[in-house]
Amino acid sequence: LNAIYSALPTTIFEVMSQLARTHDAVNLGQGFPDDPGPLDVRQKAADAVLNGWNQYPSMMGLPELRQAAAAHFRHWQGLDLDPDTEVMVTSGATEALAAALFGLIEPGDEVVLFQPLYDAYLPLVQRAGGIARLVRLEPPHWTITGDKLKAAFSDRTKLVLLNNPQNPTGVVHSRAELQLLADFCLRFGAYAVCDEVWEHIVFDGLRFEPLMAFDGMRERTVKISSAGKIFGMTGWKVGMVFAAPPLMKVLSKAHQFLTFTTPPNLQAAVAYGLGKDDGYFTAMRAGLQRSRDRLTDGLAGLGFRVLPSAGTYFLTVDLSAHSNAPDDEAFCLDLAKTHKVAAIPVSAFYAQDAVRNVVRFCFAKNDATIDKALERLSHLR
Amino acid sequence: LNAIYSALPTTIFEVMSQLARTHDAVNLGQGFPDDPGPLDVRQKAADAVLNGWNQYPSMMGLPELRQAAAAHFRHWQGLDLDPDTEVMVTSGATEALAAALFGLIEPGDEVVLFQPLYDAYLPLVQRAGGIARLVRLEPPHWTITGDKLKAAFSDRTKLVLLNNPQNPTGVVHSRAELQLLADFCLRFGAYAVCDEVWEHIVFDGLRFEPLMAFDGMRERTVKISSAGKIFGMTGWKVGMVFAAPPLMKVLSKAHQFLTFTTPPNLQAAVAYGLGKDDGYFTAMRAGLQRSRDRLTDGLAGLGFRVLPSAGTYFLTVDLSAHSNAPDDEAFCLDLAKTHKVAAIPVSAFYAQDAVRNVVRFCFAKNDATIDKALERLSHLR
Ligand SMILES: CSCCC(=O)C(=O)O
Ligand SMILES: CSCCC(=O)C(=O)O
Repeated sequence: LNAIYSALPTTIFEVMSQLARTHDAVNLGQGFPDDPGPLDVRQKAADAVLNGWNQYPSMMGLPELRQAAAAHFRHWQGLDLDPDTEVMVTSGATEALAAALFGLIEPGDEVVLFQPLYDAYLPLVQRAGGIARLVRLEPPHWTITGDKLKAAFSDRTKLVLLNNPQNPTGVVHSRAELQLLADFCLRFGAYAVCDEVWEHIVFDGLRFEPLMAFDGMRERTVKISSAGKIFGMTGWKVGMVFAAPPLMKVLSKAHQFLTFTTPPNLQAAVAYGLGKDDGYFTAMRAGLQRSRDRLTDGLAGLGFRVLPSAGTYFLTVDLSAHSNAPDDEAFCLDLAKTHKVAAIPVSAFYAQDAVRNVVRFCFAKNDATIDKALERLSHLR
Repeated sequence: LNAIYSALPTTIFEVMSQLARTHDAVNLGQGFPDDPGPLDVRQKAADAVLNGWNQYPSMMGLPELRQAAAAHFRHWQGLDLDPDTEVMVTSGATEALAAALFGLIEPGDEVVLFQPLYDAYLPLVQRAGGIARLVRLEPPHWTITGDKLKAAFSDRTKLVLLNNPQNPTGVVHSRAELQLLADFCLRFGAYAVCDEVWEHIVFDGLRFEPLMAFDGMRERTVKISSAGKIFGMTGWKVGMVFAAPPLMKVLSKAHQFLTFTTPPNLQAAVAYGLGKDDGYFTAMRAGLQRSRDRLTDGLAGLGFRVLPSAGTYFLTVDLSAHSNAPDDEAFCLDLAKTHKVAAIPVSAFYAQDAVRNVVRFCFAKNDATIDKALERLSHLR
């Protein structure tokens, strides 16, 4: 059996959600909203299932979705993408990531990764034959610096994999950090694979800037987006990839033998949804920002040291503020089993030299869920 | 960029479907039915989209689908599968195949493959680091023999990949051939990955036997099924994998980082559909058998030598019966462009020593579509 996969544990998100079910815990672990998602978008999907095309769509995705995606990201991020040659629909962002890594990496290539890292990244890089160069970011600011990049990039660097906005920290990397990273990519001839699935979920009036928009990066960036995240329906598994034609060509070859295509009924609904007016998206952000603030204030009121979250569904808490703080994993296990609140230990996002004093909470929940979690957490103290 | 994927052409199915669209051809190429699929199953999906769970389901698949799948294959194939540890839902059979190959193969392992082979097989085996050992099957019977297996199996064989019923030939391998293959697996300690997506689509009263049911194969077989094929809705991309727990454990690790999970609304509908009574499935077979016979008779009437099809959506035609027969690829290109009927050249299913005189037609179409294609084909003569 394959050694890389044999050695892997089950993903922490699945483990914590199972634990939450077993212990009837409030699940602030795995990132998904309480809300069922926009009714009009679901209505479109239902219509398409009943009256639309249920056979193979084009392998690259429904033309109407590729057009809608190009228009959406032109409007929101100023990107100029050709729907025929630079847009591909995948079965979730995870498949997009797999297609990008299997498509770009030749065995022996070096790949720069940032810790904390989403747990799919390292095994996929390794299974694709890549050699990981880990850059370790630390709380409370998780800043990317030139010194850190200098230690990681080399002439053997094929690509850097960036998650921005960043899960689990809620960090949105600054223009200066992104410029620095772009400079390194250009200097070393490296590609960037950008997992930007949280791009719409940024707070406090922030404007998200895709790495692809930086000078010189247009031709060397693979951008990954997620309709599941954009519309808060994480089970839909409709992902999107954007890249210049020479890159897209090889990504499409990987995609054609990973899933080949994605349900056309859900694609049709996403095509519709991406055209919703600005008000929908700003209201979604505002709602999540209110939830972030509610959980932040509640946790602070209970004496937790909450680290700032500028985007994503997540905020983190620094346990080291407490005397006798247990490590994050022990804290999360006890929290789920004894106090019936599920959260995610951030150490699960490190492959080595783990930060062990930070815990992630998902706030994409309605007020009642957040309040129930806070009430249960109040018994901790 | 990755050399294996860079060298690949676009899959023949996509190429021919695009050609069919461009030339407004009757598409008997890519295998998908004219029929929109069972209304009650689509109604369940629509209900689930509107009123059900649209967030991440369990990574292994909805419990209700895993239970329905275990019950379905107990009833239809006498298999005894534990829904908790031996069943996994994937985003189509292609993802199941990718998970099986990336999960089981260690770089350097040998993998036995039969030609004609579905075009995903070889690149996936190679990208997983496997070394392909090709067994060449030939028309008109495409029989697996001991001599052929002896030349392909060795102590380095990790697994054999079998497609039965076989696409593109429509062959259903005999009990004797399967027993022979099982004997080789046991003798060489090899696993079998069985792409049995056409298992429900067998004709003339044939009873399909899964390789997993053969003595000694229960623990060493990965069985792959497809709801898209079972219900004739090829765009749904709901696949299922079955394997003993030690194999499933590693397959699930590959799956968690290929797509992680599959839309729960479609899963719920498939769970319902798998419980439909025998009459539904036998009527589906009977309808397809009538279509097979209609196309077979029509082609024979036009002077084509039609090879027998015992299952799948496909029949094949032997061009060598014609004087001055062009090769299959030239034949298909001319057919699509000049006569406006799309078909698939069987040489596309060979990586070496291609059989070049056989063309595949999909008959999963309504009578009007079949008759229109026949009318156009009549001008060929
Ligand atoms: C694929 S399950 C994980 C979902 C997620 O993005 C998270 O919880 O971090
Ligand atoms: C994934 S497209 C190919 C569909 C199919 O099974 C075929 O036409 O052979």
